[in-house]
Amino acid sequence: MKSKRRLQTTFDIISIGYELLDGRILNTNAKWLAEQISGLGGKVCRIIAVGDEVGEISSVIKDSFRRKIDWVITTGGLGPTYDDVTLQGVAKAVGRKLVLNKRALEMVRKKYLELFEKGIVDSPELTPHRMKMAMLPRGAKPLENEVGSAPGVLLKFKKTRIVCLPGVPNELENIFEKRVKPLLERSVKKIHTADRWLLIKGVPESTLAPKIDDVRSRFPTVYVKSHPRREEGESIINLYMRIIAQNPRICRETLDKVEKIITELAEELGGVVSRLEGAPR
Amino acid sequence: MKSKRRLQTTFDIISIGYELLDGRILNTNAKWLAEQISGLGGKVCRIIAVGDEVGEISSVIKDSFRRKIDWVITTGGLGPTYDDVTLQGVAKAVGRKLVLNKRALEMVRKKYLELFEKGIVDSPELTPHRMKMAMLPRGAKPLENEVGSAPGVLLKFKKTRIVCLPGVPNELENIFEKRVKPLLERSVKKIHTADRWLLIKGVPESTLAPKIDDVRSRFPTVYVKSHPRREEGESIINLYMRIIAQNPRICRETLDKVEKIITELAEELGGVVSRLEGAPR
Repeated sequence: MKSKRRLQTTFDIISIGYELLDGRILNTNAKWLAEQISGLGGKVCRIIAVGDEVGEISSVIKDSFRRKIDWVITTGGLGPTYDDVTLQGVAKAVGRKLVLNKRALEMVRKKYLELFEKGIVDSPELTPHRMKMAMLPRGAKPLENEVGSAPGVLLKFKKTRIVCLPGVPNELENIFEKRVKPLLERSVKKIHTADRWLLIKGVPESTLAPKIDDVRSRFPTVYVKSHPRREEGESIINLYMRIIAQNPRICRETLDKVEKIITELAEELGGVVSRLEGAPR
Repeated sequence: MKSKRRLQTTFDIISIGYELLDGRILNTNAKWLAEQISGLGGKVCRIIAVGDEVGEISSVIKDSFRRKIDWVITTGGLGPTYDDVTLQGVAKAVGRKLVLNKRALEMVRKKYLELFEKGIVDSPELTPHRMKMAMLPRGAKPLENEVGSAPGVLLKFKKTRIVCLPGVPNELENIFEKRVKPLLERSVKKIHTADRWLLIKGVPESTLAPKIDDVRSRFPTVYVKSHPRREEGESIINLYMRIIAQNPRICRETLDKVEKIITELAEELGGVVSRLEGAPR
């Protein structure tokens, strides 16, 4: 399993907010991010929702460090109010202080001037609560938020990169697409995937299953799933195999090897095996 | 924070399945469960999605044990296929073997007989894959599934109760409502909540904020959130306070105390405070 994980750049998504834990809202942000990350070739290892508590946030981030996750993406808790404590949690996890970040402050200042000029806020004044959004863990970089007022945050700690995004979906999406995706496109390991379907007739799944379990443990980078059915009293198995590897050659060679082994096993059990040209039906 | 958590019965929800991690599906099961649990007075501490890997499942469950969570609810991975490994993960976490559970086997046998009689499956035979659904960690109890074929599972380990539910939403809901909810109604600590709104005029939020931070740290069971705005140049703050306590008297007395302190602080700063009869507007 280790080798499988390490082949891909790994991610944890940490969603912060009590509203996720009491069932008030669905975690659509995590699904959106997971889709984006998978689309870039990354592997999301865990999605964790925790409350707005510094200790909880710090504890789950430290756990990602222990598991040597490459990227930790947090959502929520970057706003100006008391209970927006994400950056305090991150600061605690990395053992650094929160300091006023000049670039972040410039972003916040510019944003409130705009909002004031549009008549949305009554004053462009940088109150302590507004300045709070520019207090980042030492060494962090702000990520411009074109939609809302709280900048996103990027921070490197040992081998892990931490990205903090706001919880408001269109702000999160804006920062991710404009500031984070370009970084990921450069740094996520390129992977290749290949899949194959076999049709196995005349072997009951219950007989083949333990053999396939053996194959799976010998080839941990190959995902094997069987879809059994019966047709006119005969056992029919559609067997799906998928591999992730660093290059197309390894994909093809490994699938060839696994196909050969499974074919021989099924034939020994009296089955007839053929390769399908794609997904069945 | 500790005292706040321990006042309520605590829950972790562990959602199992790669389809949650690659963004294929939204975790609606976790939201549904979180709503049910909150409605019963329980506190969901974390919602964690992990892949179909024994080591991952075992690792997050052990983490719930370390944090002395009262109830761990897992969803998904109870079916008959190779990659349904939830019970292997649970067994590993509690250090027990998977053994054939007679009551669970009876449930599975009855289910396949029904499905066979309805013409949905071709044979009522208890294949190894079907029997797999009756292999439970030693000491576990099966929870009847009236909708699908995999029974739910209930297991006690030290002071934690583990409940495993299927990932198919209507199966999960059926088992939860019929088998789990009655248990929770008996065992979740009864709690009381109370809330109150104050209207504070003439004090800028930026001035009041640090004082309220002090109050919050003195009363960790009280949630305080301010909603500032300006009206004709004057600072207006709607201040929301909510408390969770073991009885209504403590709720009322604590809110009275906090209200008194905040009122005095605001008045010292030149503000005028009044109590609202409910949520503003």
